[in-house]
Amino acid sequence: MKIMVINGANLNFLGIREKNIYGKKGFKDVVEYIKYEANKIDVTADCRQSNIEGEIINFIQEAYLNNYDGIVINPGAYTHYSYAIMDAIKSVEMPVIEVHISNVHKREEFRHTSVTVAACSGQIVGLGIYGYVLALMAVKNIKEQ
Amino acid sequence: MKIMVINGANLNFLGIREKNIYGKKGFKDVVEYIKYEANKIDVTADCRQSNIEGEIINFIQEAYLNNYDGIVINPGAYTHYSYAIMDAIKSVEMPVIEVHISNVHKREEFRHTSVTVAACSGQIVGLGIYGYVLALMAVKNIKEQ
Amino acid sequence: MKIMVINGANLNFLGIREKNIYGKKGFKDVVEYIKYEANKIDVTADCRQSNIEGEIINFIQEAYLNNYDGIVINPGAYTHYSYAIMDAIKSVEMPVIEVHISNVHKREEFRHTSVTVAACSGQIVGLGIYGYVLALMAVKNIKEQ
Amino acid sequence: MKIMVINGANLNFLGIREKNIYGKKGFKDVVEYIKYEANKIDVTADCRQSNIEGEIINFIQEAYLNNYDGIVINPGAYTHYSYAIMDAIKSVEMPVIEVHISNVHKREEFRHTSVTVAACSGQIVGLGIYGYVLALMAVKNIKEQ
Amino acid sequence: MKIMVINGANLNFLGIREKNIYGKKGFKDVVEYIKYEANKIDVTADCRQSNIEGEIINFIQEAYLNNYDGIVINPGAYTHYSYAIMDAIKSVEMPVIEVHISNVHKREEFRHTSVTVAACSGQIVGLGIYGYVLALMAVKNIKEQ
Amino acid sequence: MKIMVINGANLNFLGIREKNIYGKKGFKDVVEYIKYEANKIDVTADCRQSNIEGEIINFIQEAYLNNYDGIVINPGAYTHYSYAIMDAIKSVEMPVIEVHISNVHKREEFRHTSVTVAACSGQIVGLGIYGYVLALMAVKNIKEQ
Amino acid sequence: MKIMVINGANLNFLGIREKNIYGKKGFKDVVEYIKYEANKIDVTADCRQSNIEGEIINFIQEAYLNNYDGIVINPGAYTHYSYAIMDAIKSVEMPVIEVHISNVHKREEFRHTSVTVAACSGQIVGLGIYGYVLALMAVKNIKEQ
Amino acid sequence: MKIMVINGANLNFLGIREKNIYGKKGFKDVVEYIKYEANKIDVTADCRQSNIEGEIINFIQEAYLNNYDGIVINPGAYTHYSYAIMDAIKSVEMPVIEVHISNVHKREEFRHTSVTVAACSGQIVGLGIYGYVLALMAVKNIKEQ
Amino acid sequence: MKIMVINGANLNFLGIREKNIYGKKGFKDVVEYIKYEANKIDVTADCRQSNIEGEIINFIQEAYLNNYDGIVINPGAYTHYSYAIMDAIKSVEMPVIEVHISNVHKREEFRHTSVTVAACSGQIVGLGIYGYVLALMAVKNIKEQ
Amino acid sequence: MKIMVINGANLNFLGIREKNIYGKKGFKDVVEYIKYEANKIDVTADCRQSNIEGEIINFIQEAYLNNYDGIVINPGAYTHYSYAIMDAIKSVEMPVIEVHISNVHKREEFRHTSVTVAACSGQIVGLGIYGYVLALMAVKNIKEQ
Amino acid sequence: MKIMVINGANLNFLGIREKNIYGKKGFKDVVEYIKYEANKIDVTADCRQSNIEGEIINFIQEAYLNNYDGIVINPGAYTHYSYAIMDAIKSVEMPVIEVHISNVHKREEFRHTSVTVAACSGQIVGLGIYGYVLALMAVKNIKEQ
Amino acid sequence: MKIMVINGANLNFLGIREKNIYGKKGFKDVVEYIKYEANKIDVTADCRQSNIEGEIINFIQEAYLNNYDGIVINPGAYTHYSYAIMDAIKSVEMPVIEVHISNVHKREEFRHTSVTVAACSGQIVGLGIYGYVLALMAVKNIKEQ
Repeated sequence: MKIMVINGANLNFLGIREKNIYGKKGFKDVVEYIKYEANKIDVTADCRQSNIEGEIINFIQEAYLNNYDGIVINPGAYTHYSYAIMDAIKSVEMPVIEVHISNVHKREEFRHTSVTVAACSGQIVGLGIYGYVLALMAVKNIKEQ
Repeated sequence: MKIMVINGANLNFLGIREKNIYGKKGFKDVVEYIKYEANKIDVTADCRQSNIEGEIINFIQEAYLNNYDGIVINPGAYTHYSYAIMDAIKSVEMPVIEVHISNVHKREEFRHTSVTVAACSGQIVGLGIYGYVLALMAVKNIKEQ
Repeated sequence: MKIMVINGANLNFLGIREKNIYGKKGFKDVVEYIKYEANKIDVTADCRQSNIEGEIINFIQEAYLNNYDGIVINPGAYTHYSYAIMDAIKSVEMPVIEVHISNVHKREEFRHTSVTVAACSGQIVGLGIYGYVLALMAVKNIKEQ
Repeated sequence: MKIMVINGANLNFLGIREKNIYGKKGFKDVVEYIKYEANKIDVTADCRQSNIEGEIINFIQEAYLNNYDGIVINPGAYTHYSYAIMDAIKSVEMPVIEVHISNVHKREEFRHTSVTVAACSGQIVGLGIYGYVLALMAVKNIKEQ
Repeated sequence: MKIMVINGANLNFLGIREKNIYGKKGFKDVVEYIKYEANKIDVTADCRQSNIEGEIINFIQEAYLNNYDGIVINPGAYTHYSYAIMDAIKSVEMPVIEVHISNVHKREEFRHTSVTVAACSGQIVGLGIYGYVLALMAVKNIKEQ
Repeated sequence: MKIMVINGANLNFLGIREKNIYGKKGFKDVVEYIKYEANKIDVTADCRQSNIEGEIINFIQEAYLNNYDGIVINPGAYTHYSYAIMDAIKSVEMPVIEVHISNVHKREEFRHTSVTVAACSGQIVGLGIYGYVLALMAVKNIKEQ
Repeated sequence: MKIMVINGANLNFLGIREKNIYGKKGFKDVVEYIKYEANKIDVTADCRQSNIEGEIINFIQEAYLNNYDGIVINPGAYTHYSYAIMDAIKSVEMPVIEVHISNVHKREEFRHTSVTVAACSGQIVGLGIYGYVLALMAVKNIKEQ
Repeated sequence: MKIMVINGANLNFLGIREKNIYGKKGFKDVVEYIKYEANKIDVTADCRQSNIEGEIINFIQEAYLNNYDGIVINPGAYTHYSYAIMDAIKSVEMPVIEVHISNVHKREEFRHTSVTVAACSGQIVGLGIYGYVLALMAVKNIKEQ
Repeated sequence: MKIMVINGANLNFLGIREKNIYGKKGFKDVVEYIKYEANKIDVTADCRQSNIEGEIINFIQEAYLNNYDGIVINPGAYTHYSYAIMDAIKSVEMPVIEVHISNVHKREEFRHTSVTVAACSGQIVGLGIYGYVLALMAVKNIKEQ
Repeated sequence: MKIMVINGANLNFLGIREKNIYGKKGFKDVVEYIKYEANKIDVTADCRQSNIEGEIINFIQEAYLNNYDGIVINPGAYTHYSYAIMDAIKSVEMPVIEVHISNVHKREEFRHTSVTVAACSGQIVGLGIYGYVLALMAVKNIKEQ
Repeated sequence: MKIMVINGANLNFLGIREKNIYGKKGFKDVVEYIKYEANKIDVTADCRQSNIEGEIINFIQEAYLNNYDGIVINPGAYTHYSYAIMDAIKSVEMPVIEVHISNVHKREEFRHTSVTVAACSGQIVGLGIYGYVLALMAVKNIKEQ
Repeated sequence: MKIMVINGANLNFLGIREKNIYGKKGFKDVVEYIKYEANKIDVTADCRQSNIEGEIINFIQEAYLNNYDGIVINPGAYTHYSYAIMDAIKSVEMPVIEVHISNVHKREEFRHTSVTVAACSGQIVGLGIYGYVLALMAVKNIKEQ
């Protein structure tokens, strides 16, 4: 089972950016962690990151064209206004799970609204980087039903 | 590890209520499923249900007074306006994970807002009854850190 | 034909509460009146009242489980914010008619919005306690079609 | 007892317009049905229809000047913005009951607001063309008190 | 000097409609009063009334095509939503003064907004039927500058 | 192919009204132009105009009852609030194209919202009177598919 | 008859401030003009001006305590937010007419709302400094009724 | 003099819940304190608490039926949305004083609005548990006038 | 103990202004009453009044610079929009209690919002002029803790 | 005549994405169709597509610098929030026509607002891929005037 | 070159008021600093302060009448609601630069809106008291162009 | 001292785009001017421009990773909606000053809100390209404190 894990804007600055919110682990370590945990449940996690909205759309389209089994996506701040990413998710028919590391609902008003979640299968919020692992499990669970 | 699983308004009508949204499984079966899956990860799931907002608060207070390790809660429609439940969650210092069976963000406008989530550790949305299992795992993950 | 007539918050204070709006008739007399008029059209009116939101949900579920032919409901102030009652109405597939004694649209802003009406078959507003009688007739009319 | 029954914009297209919402009965048949049912309760129903907002006002004024006992009115879409019709209703002191065939609260947002209802005695919503009959009864009930 | 005085929806019910707000004088008497006062300042007041929005537009266009010196207009409730009348006023280049008999700002929220006033030269509010006389004087004052 | 071209409020004042926005061509000339261009693509354009909202509804109903192939409509300012015209368009099942001469989105806020467009097949905005011609072509294109 | 004419913030800069809107006449000349015209209708106009909100309240209280027959007031920008001036007007029982030189409804959004007008008898807008004269006449008209 | 002191949702968790906001005193101690201070001013304080909205309504009705002299009420979070409690307060004609321990206006947005206060005589906010004592004095003051 | 009691806009018109709301007692008498009651609890009440927003700020600053023990303030209508007074309160670190004589929440919408309360220790609303006495007691209670 | 046809986010997924809305034709075929129809009216259509907002701006700037005769643009979801694209269109002085394949006004709320249209000459909505052809004709029509 | 530097409400409490936001420097020292730095760039800084809104208007008018070269203004909290100061700035044609010591956009919602800035040449925010120096330079830069 | 000067969307079209707003100077000349003025105060200005949102984030991250002393940024239209750029600024701990050439508060509504400014140290608005020079000075001032 092959799942694409897409991280959006500023997530490559994990470990640098607001550590009290996102934790001290650097982005590379987070990617390693996800791959390692994916392996444990027989899933290949193909991790991508971009700060560019349109490249995130390109990733999603690539996942579709290359027959991935699902997508785990943390669009970063694009979550809150990128109708273009939302349309991209809607255009591909596969399980897509949205993940947010922090509990966005405890933070600024604008982070309470996700324009992308309505196009996803589900959403996991506030459970740290463990949220990515749960999301991989959720994709697997959907595919196996 | 002892976790209270609280289901709120109308969740006792699972299997009766809008099956296309919530699935065909009856409420009793869902409780069985949760307990069974909890067992697998060495967790005791104490499942409660009430249609009365104040009793849900009583459950939360009971969990606190009896030293549960955490709470998994699906307040049903109270999610969207019960500041009283939100205050109850805030008053107990333990992991609380909010779960919604359906992807509430695909449904009516009023379901897009949760007044309780900001008091919780995290939230799992749209992953069916499997969401309860992931939530139990999340509580465990938090306790073990 | 058996119809449950549910009265919500503060309706047991009819005759005490704001008589210029709700009339001088006490709650007991209103119940008698409804039952008497129901009889005339060959309907049994089973009248319930509670100030507790969750108990109103319990009544609705009971009506479903006991095969009532329909429900006439005046949720009182819960009309304006109880998505939980709304969900309960939605979960039972039977004729449900919402009644308000006074013309709520002539009163405070918050009374202009009903969150429950969209889950009902129809609504009768501002016609005094005669509205309950019309609602019983409406349930009967739906069942007989 | 003489009651004017006023139908507003597009109601002459009953039977043509969105049959799944308004039913298959043509407008003429609906008028016949109303008159027939009115007769049964000793009421003369004088049925008018116009697509022109100002003519609806003229009907209301005519009902006042000719001493009708009351008005049953379905202003169609004018319900949602015609403050002019609202003023007309307010200017005549007689029972006026607003009727909507469909449950407008289940439909588009703009149909949830009636600017005319606050000037009426009461409102009957979502009970099909039977709503006109209930409205005639309601006018009668008010006059006989 | 020839000025058209246009009265809109329900103003023909002056003396009938809410006398505590609009006064006891019947519409005919008001028209007489306006003509009489107009005469005193050497103005011919051509008084029109219609309940139909589009006919009010026709009056405005007629005033333009027949070279009236100005318009005094009380659109009644159309004031609050008729962008069509607003466009009509805008399309004719002549002094147009909006008049309201009552102080609309003391009444319901919706009467606080005039969509037509921005297309007029000025507005006179709350000064009773004397407002029409002041408006005629204002048109004259503009023309004589 | 027979198409009804309906012009709403104030469009008969083309050439008089705000020439910098709508152009200098008088209404009669515009009608000639439309008919001439319609002819070129083998379409008969039946041009109607009214300042009265309800008459526009009557035109639409007439087009339906007389089996026109489609409607091109510029409701003028009614575009922005006439839910009654919207309902009329919705009630007839034929291609309806909304046209605006000017780019309404460059003008006042209230012109940015069309309540009628959601009931139409499509909309052409800001292309001057050439927009009518494109709309006729669009109706033809739909019919020929 | 003694009427206080109160001018608020920045009106002492008439003739300096935005001449295209307020005209070229200096403030002193305007005061002269008002007094002169007042004289003609047997009224004494006592003209005050202040840029300080609280002093305007003091003027109003003074007019009350000294038994003026009425007040003509142009609060300048305070019109749009001074609930304190509004309360002052409300506390004195005498005719108060609000005047605006320009048609405020043609200008910025914030000028469309007057928080003071609801406490006044009436309002005259957009008729230049002639508006003050009409306002004096209106006070006189009210007193003479 | 007999006054009912009603505490709503989560107030039984005083001393546990957010001590930095509500203080360290446990709920029992607070009740003792209130009774003791009540005694000093010759008042009997009958203290009730419930997490259930409807039971709070029951308390209010009980106070009415048993002829209490007044009510001091802190509805907890229900303050912000319970129109049902508001209606209950409105239905009993006696002095009712709303109390909040913390200054709710310094906290989250939703706590700035009280839907119940408009039905009360007055409100005391932010003065800690001493607020209950002042409220008792206020009831006494009203009764003695 | 020395407490400054500040009354804002229009409070010097107590006894004149809307007596049904504020009572018949004249402002001087109210000041006497406050001083007399202050004395009873060993407090010196230094009473100030101004209609000018900035002078109220000056009073607050004076209280700070002269080491008063606290402030009791009724800003009048400035309560609802004076962020400047709010900033002044915030800048002095001493107990400040806001008082309103009437229950502002029963009155116009704009009176429901206080922009100053969030900078105060607490607020007392709707308890008549007795509210000033309770506020003095509250300041004393805070100082003595 | 050389016109740039720019397609934005997700339009390269035509034929894949929501076929019931956008049709079954693949993106390549649509490009062929546009070029073919352009040819027929003596226009060269230079078709571009990108999922990246900034590249769409680059296309627009390129069209300007290379002296294209006009632009036909479908920004996809960027239509609804890209003020950056709007600024780009505004900065180039040439005919720009916005096209939407589906009738966006029949779909989700967020699609009803175009932030780019106010910078364009005009807009064509809901006429399928034929809309591109009409847009090319419209550019031509503008250039030939 | 002579520039007036106007400080509004509460700025005389610099060094006292919220030092963590505004710094520890007392107001007198800030004035000295501004004058000293002004000197360095050959500018005379005439520093004024008032807590009274209307006096700030008086300062602005004085600057105009005495031919100052420009104004640097920090209206304090009046920034957020004083349309009267905004009108005063608009009425004088000279460079006016608004300064805020703290980054108001990081603070409470109400501080994010400036009603005065649209009347100014420019604005400098969040750069501490150095902002006044930059503002003086900016005025100089404008005058020298 | 090394400062990155980042220009966002459409700023490379300075001198082409709306010259009446942004001035006639071409983008290259502006860059030269900034560098030249930077030099004068011993600062190296490294100027970047991109129309792509994500590349602006890349620039900010690069500035952080390469130890620049600060950033001067004009995000162009991205200012008004790019929460992604806002997050990027927040993630780097260094002085960041936002600059806008024109006074955005005099222009369209959407330009009045900056979503990025709250993450910056300060903001300079409306002072033309001289604003960049002041911003460089401000960064230097912060670093030297």
